Amino acid sequence: MPPPPIIPTRIGIVGLGLIGGSLALDLCAQGHEIWGVSRRDTTCQRALQQSIVHHASTNLASLAPVDVVFICTPISAILPTLSELAAHLTPTTVVTDVGSVKGSLVTQATELWPRFVGGHPMSGKAEAGLTAATPHLFQQRPYVLTPLPSTPADAVEQVTALIRQLGSTLYIANPDDHDQAVALISHLPVMLGASLLHTCTTSPQQTLAQQLASSGFKDTSRVGGGNPELGRLMAQYNQPALLAALAHYQSQLTQLTQAIADSDWNRVESYLTAAHQDRPAFVTGA
Amino acid sequence: MPPPPIIPTRIGIVGLGLIGGSLALDLCAQGHEIWGVSRRDTTCQRALQQSIVHHASTNLASLAPVDVVFICTPISAILPTLSELAAHLTPTTVVTDVGSVKGSLVTQATELWPRFVGGHPMSGKAEAGLTAATPHLFQQRPYVLTPLPSTPADAVEQVTALIRQLGSTLYIANPDDHDQAVALISHLPVMLGASLLHTCTTSPQQTLAQQLASSGFKDTSRVGGGNPELGRLMAQYNQPALLAALAHYQSQLTQLTQAIADSDWNRVESYLTAAHQDRPAFVTGA
Repeated sequence: MPPPPIIPTRIGIVGLGLIGGSLALDLCAQGHEIWGVSRRDTTCQRALQQSIVHHASTNLASLAPVDVVFICTPISAILPTLSELAAHLTPTTVVTDVGSVKGSLVTQATELWPRFVGGHPMSGKAEAGLTAATPHLFQQRPYVLTPLPSTPADAVEQVTALIRQLGSTLYIANPDDHDQAVALISHLPVMLGASLLHTCTTSPQQTLAQQLASSGFKDTSRVGGGNPELGRLMAQYNQPALLAALAHYQSQLTQLTQAIADSDWNRVESYLTAAHQDRPAFVTGA
Repeated sequence: MPPPPIIPTRIGIVGLGLIGGSLALDLCAQGHEIWGVSRRDTTCQRALQQSIVHHASTNLASLAPVDVVFICTPISAILPTLSELAAHLTPTTVVTDVGSVKGSLVTQATELWPRFVGGHPMSGKAEAGLTAATPHLFQQRPYVLTPLPSTPADAVEQVTALIRQLGSTLYIANPDDHDQAVALISHLPVMLGASLLHTCTTSPQQTLAQQLASSGFKDTSRVGGGNPELGRLMAQYNQPALLAALAHYQSQLTQLTQAIADSDWNRVESYLTAAHQDRPAFVTGA
């Protein structure tokens, strides 16, 4: 079945960093008309020079003509941005965001703007900012939408159509399920890795451990040693789901520790065998 | 300063798998005369065909003429092998091993053979067996020797000289310090990763978690989803050090969890900042 024809859409993008810039790149290339908004005029000028936006402004009011807005600010700025933006949009406009935690944010955003569709593209790279923007960043990557029962179906369809054009793999989830899943696969690994590093640095064998650490330690600790500000935001915005995941993890680790303390090597090997067999389902295409 | 001239040595290697085969390859290339011993005659024949050994046998008695023996069997076979080997060696022969846990093994091996020098090359790859043997596997990788105060200095020097010829970075540690360090950087990450996988597979959000898991989850869980038999052996042979590391880790994770539960975001960020700053010292060259 051929893909449906692309209907050119007037798209606003607030926040021209890695995600906003990469969205602008791909959506511009698809033939849509892009309005960019950045707090900094230099970023607006750069986006215009790179021809990834057709219009750019530091003023949210400039988005009055658009059909769909992607809010690509840091998570703490999403609701304040939407609150200000709401005064300028026409009532049919659809607003979506790219925040990594959805839960209460989706409820609050929907109160501000009924045609809000929560979104979370699971794409990223270590670098930040417009200079890190990359074509096809979202291709073959998961992109989750978290509509509420009250979200108008045509608003969801409009965002869905754009996301399919990015080549993403679309998932629909309710906001709380989304937050629990990202707590498990994204936020929990950060806390485990950071705790592993602290365990080593507070050990009498710290120096020898540093000398002997190899690729296994490097991989296990990678996200735990990542950007601390991002890690704090994960904990802050996804606190209940992360605490539940941590409690569940502590009980799993305690089970394994008990098997080791009991010298029950068959139980230890069964536990590790299940992990070995279950892992491939989590890392397909990752 | 030029490296000291290589004095050709008669070297026995018991166990021609990844480590034994790779040692044979490099030491043969350095001009030493190599006696290989494998349980299987087909492995002996293959090692001879590949010209990585000069002599090969399934019989430990064949090692009577050698000056230095590397025991490269699985860890459970090291002491039985040494026990049988001791009857065939001349008293001046030095014996070393490549087991990943040292502790009581070094004490027991020294009782069987006073000129025993515990060793642990921190080199590996996913594949096993002679077909996986690789030249320069030990180059620029840590190689730990764990002599006891009673170990003859000339025996340590003889093994040291060979290890330097492999291009390894040599470390000397006492056996218990070694075991604590590898518990932290090698065995603990396996248990954390396996527990992370179990946390996800026993969660109601397992399916969504699988769909959304990305490179961060892949890396954090890699060694946890590794060879379960190797994982069991780590726990079995390094039980006290691993249990101490797990207890220490649990207390570190509890500190971080408490900061999140307290909504003390500054404390969370400080914890993550320390992890971020401390990690580079563990991953230099890894």
